[in-house]
Amino acid sequence: MTDNALDRLVTLFSKLPGIGKKSAARIAYHILDSNPALAASLAKELSGLHQAIRRCGVCGGFTEADPCFVCSNPARDKSIICVVESAQDMRIIEEGREFSGVYHVLGGLIAPLEGVSPADLSISKLINRLGSVNEIILALNPTVEGDTTALFLQKTLKDYPVEISRLASGMPVGGNIGYTDKLTLSRSFRGRVKV
Amino acid sequence: MTDNALDRLVTLFSKLPGIGKKSAARIAYHILDSNPALAASLAKELSGLHQAIRRCGVCGGFTEADPCFVCSNPARDKSIICVVESAQDMRIIEEGREFSGVYHVLGGLIAPLEGVSPADLSISKLINRLGSVNEIILALNPTVEGDTTALFLQKTLKDYPVEISRLASGMPVGGNIGYTDKLTLSRSFRGRVKV
Repeated sequence: MTDNALDRLVTLFSKLPGIGKKSAARIAYHILDSNPALAASLAKELSGLHQAIRRCGVCGGFTEADPCFVCSNPARDKSIICVVESAQDMRIIEEGREFSGVYHVLGGLIAPLEGVSPADLSISKLINRLGSVNEIILALNPTVEGDTTALFLQKTLKDYPVEISRLASGMPVGGNIGYTDKLTLSRSFRGRVKV
Repeated sequence: MTDNALDRLVTLFSKLPGIGKKSAARIAYHILDSNPALAASLAKELSGLHQAIRRCGVCGGFTEADPCFVCSNPARDKSIICVVESAQDMRIIEEGREFSGVYHVLGGLIAPLEGVSPADLSISKLINRLGSVNEIILALNPTVEGDTTALFLQKTLKDYPVEISRLASGMPVGGNIGYTDKLTLSRSFRGRVKV
């Protein structure tokens, strides 16, 4: 194909996570076929995004106002901090409406192979917040990187008077023992709950 | 969540085809985490898209220059027209580099239930192009709508001195008889090729 505006848009879309070349073309043609208002509002939101959204100075989540709507909410329990990898994980937990404490965004997980060391994460900021905190919930992915980071935080925080827990890992609700991988099954056994 | 720039972007992305709410959030956070240049170039391409791209006056495909790069290419065989549903299908066939004729974009398929009648398609324009055309290849999806449209075009064009064919339909290359649905298998039988 020739290099034109449509191809450039397809190339840009195909750089986004989860969008391959075919999906990118489908999306670009959809936008072209749609009312120009859709392209215009997408363009408007994208060009204003980085000006409008900043990091919350307290927890590190994405927000328009600093501190964010969680940190500035007097109804939230400031004595429990849920430690997450990213602002997106914070959003997902927030949508579950299960948790009423506050968050702390690490900004990544320890991954030596990718050059991410503890110094790259927002850990000293977390320690500075510990004053009135009783409990820390590590809501990190049950992966090698998540496990490494959880272990590191556990060791780093062991001299502070806080209770540390980690989200339960095991078979998902509605899951099937026959289709569960060995590691998950083994973790389900080790983390079995008395009934 | 509160209504902020990030949520508005997630909502817009989730309106695009093939992007659910979770993917939309993932994409929006990715853009926010990336260099602002990505958001800026996406915004730029989106806002200029509808000005830059128009319909080719000959075939109806999307193009920056009119006629498009296929219709204006002297090396293309103008005596064979490949009739497609959409400009996107034209792009996909063009990427296959199999076809060296020209295209005609119908702009849809006949679908009475969705209120799309033959009058909504670019059929009279196709008839006006038939002068020096020997062959018409109907490259329409093997669906009810595609079959209906192919039948309609076959009847409409039967008095013109053109050969009409339709893309072969059957099992995909690498397919498996055991996993092929009955309709496809039946079509493979009816369309069997002598060896």
